[in-house]
Amino acid sequence: MTAKKPSSDKIAFKPIGVIHSPFKSREDIDPARNVRPGGFAKVVGGIEIFPAYAAGLKDIDGFSHLIIFFAFHRSQGGRLLVHPPFQTRARGVFSTRSPHRPNPLGMTVVRLLGRRKNILRVSGLDMLEGTPLLDIKPYISKDSKRGVRRGWMEGSGIRVRQHARFPLSNRRGII
Amino acid sequence: MTAKKPSSDKIAFKPIGVIHSPFKSREDIDPARNVRPGGFAKVVGGIEIFPAYAAGLKDIDGFSHLIIFFAFHRSQGGRLLVHPPFQTRARGVFSTRSPHRPNPLGMTVVRLLGRRKNILRVSGLDMLEGTPLLDIKPYISKDSKRGVRRGWMEGSGIRVRQHARFPLSNRRGII
Repeated sequence: MTAKKPSSDKIAFKPIGVIHSPFKSREDIDPARNVRPGGFAKVVGGIEIFPAYAAGLKDIDGFSHLIIFFAFHRSQGGRLLVHPPFQTRARGVFSTRSPHRPNPLGMTVVRLLGRRKNILRVSGLDMLEGTPLLDIKPYISKDSKRGVRRGWMEGSGIRVRQHARFPLSNRRGII
Repeated sequence: MTAKKPSSDKIAFKPIGVIHSPFKSREDIDPARNVRPGGFAKVVGGIEIFPAYAAGLKDIDGFSHLIIFFAFHRSQGGRLLVHPPFQTRARGVFSTRSPHRPNPLGMTVVRLLGRRKNILRVSGLDMLEGTPLLDIKPYISKDSKRGVRRGWMEGSGIRVRQHARFPLSNRRGII
């Protein structure tokens, strides 16, 4: 019977690298970027993989997008209700991308621009300089969903797709 | 100077729930699903959030897709080169979705079908029954990338989008 009981044991993850971002402190990250055309798409930086793990980067160069997993190392702890930027109502944390989560786990899809040895040059960074890297996965077609409904964010002023209100003719060249 | 040195301290994550899947053992998961139209899209199950965290589910109902983060609790350890199903060549682990990673962290985008209290009914599950849940995030428009290049997987027989080779007229009703 004990084998069927869900485990509540903690799981220890180790940093496999570090993220180099132009955002040196939390004040550098303007939350208005979330509601501004362009967002974080042009924020360029480096993903440094520690030498012990660099062999795992083999074959990564052919992918256009990567999923970066990291620790919100400045998280202020796990809240169940959070106040997203520009919102007055508290929202359930699992309906938000807040860093203040029960497990301070972050995820961002970035565009791979290039690679030099154990450092990947990417765009689309939205986390702090020095953020501990936990994993990299290739972004594949099944990660790209259509017909997405985004709950309370709809019409909330949180514009997460940069061309949301642009006519079709303006969509050229957008990542 | 020490403050600038990247930390290699381990980060402890705690399960916030458990995933209920029809796959009771690894043998139940047919790797051919990765190359078969439909894939895991119709695999239905439950995401159970432990009562202590259930308040964080507020506002989640309006989202069509969720990103589920979990521990590969049966992972056989962190390899840097892995052999994906049906592949003869070893690939760098960060260019694959293998469970045998330096940090056994899994991520799957699922479709939210419904909710009863602290249990979410979802489709698109590809992990084992009893998998420890670490986080849930809403899938938002910026997670949906276009123009995706998928490196070594292109033309490898790994068909990750179920309608990749189907004519447009067959695309109706596909999630």
